[in-house]
Amino acid sequence: MSKKIYLAGPEVFLPNAREMLARKAELARAAGFEPLSPGDLEIPVADTKKGLGYAISAVDERMMLEADAIIANLTPFRGIAADTGTTFELGFMCALGKAVFAYTNVAANHYRRVVAHYHGEVSKGDDGHLRGPDGLSVEDFDMIDNLMLHGGVERRGGTVIVGHAAPDALYTDLTAFKTCLAVAADRLL
Amino acid sequence: MSKKIYLAGPEVFLPNAREMLARKAELARAAGFEPLSPGDLEIPVADTKKGLGYAISAVDERMMLEADAIIANLTPFRGIAADTGTTFELGFMCALGKAVFAYTNVAANHYRRVVAHYHGEVSKGDDGHLRGPDGLSVEDFDMIDNLMLHGGVERRGGTVIVGHAAPDALYTDLTAFKTCLAVAADRLL
Repeated sequence: MSKKIYLAGPEVFLPNAREMLARKAELARAAGFEPLSPGDLEIPVADTKKGLGYAISAVDERMMLEADAIIANLTPFRGIAADTGTTFELGFMCALGKAVFAYTNVAANHYRRVVAHYHGEVSKGDDGHLRGPDGLSVEDFDMIDNLMLHGGVERRGGTVIVGHAAPDALYTDLTAFKTCLAVAADRLL
Repeated sequence: MSKKIYLAGPEVFLPNAREMLARKAELARAAGFEPLSPGDLEIPVADTKKGLGYAISAVDERMMLEADAIIANLTPFRGIAADTGTTFELGFMCALGKAVFAYTNVAANHYRRVVAHYHGEVSKGDDGHLRGPDGLSVEDFDMIDNLMLHGGVERRGGTVIVGHAAPDALYTDLTAFKTCLAVAADRLL
């Protein structure tokens, strides 16, 4: 029986979503996996906007339950952090004890992105924590995103791959994905 | 045996994190729960930044495994979407089959926040999807954040409470939290 891998990421929002999901699925198949991704789903029929959202949520959760592993694309999305749908899915798979892998196409880590978000205006507060001008503390754990994500992956033996895509290819460059896939194949197949 | 409830949210980043976490914990206790929150943890010792991140990740996951339920604060954090640590935790608890509840202190839903992010420059693409000027599709599911979060909570019988805090009290106003807590107590105790 081949191993199933769930391909989570913000590709679903791209103008060429179907093409990108198909390319990732093809690479996963070439590596020996059976890919599962939101691109595989026929959009279920629903009467309301919310009903459609529920239906997609149910389909995606079912695919995760079926999958043996996840590769989560944690490239920052519409801001400085990963897509929240993808981070939910990564947490979901960690809790299920599945094999977890992640990558990002942005080389600047979480700390550097938060400092850039504050235009460098970060200083040490009375309590010794680095804080932005809004008082929020600036995490510095040498990690690509919140520690629950990066820590959750590496603590269970998964791997986080850090890529460095051109700004206009943030969601289409598959270099880091391919590396991540190779590590997953090496580990699981 | 009292029920344990995990209090997830970006409060951990506030200048008055300990005070805020203590206030939430006190309210949860008054409602009849045993609260578990990152504020309870003594920060574990570690040799490296990453090691510290791992240790906190391990403590938080252990608390979630112990908990019967979660209340996730999905108020947008440093951008238009929820804190990614919190969304990971919500996915984690959904996968474990725990009781899940969520709230936000921002009344504008996901769709309205994304449209504002694009300064209103949203238009229908050839495929019938609404898209921003960057081509990324704009989800409109009448939900407070990505459908995996809002759908994940409501599909398992949880409740999403939408508050409307003043801009300067986004992370300190506990009105929506209290409502969410009352619903959780009514459901579980």
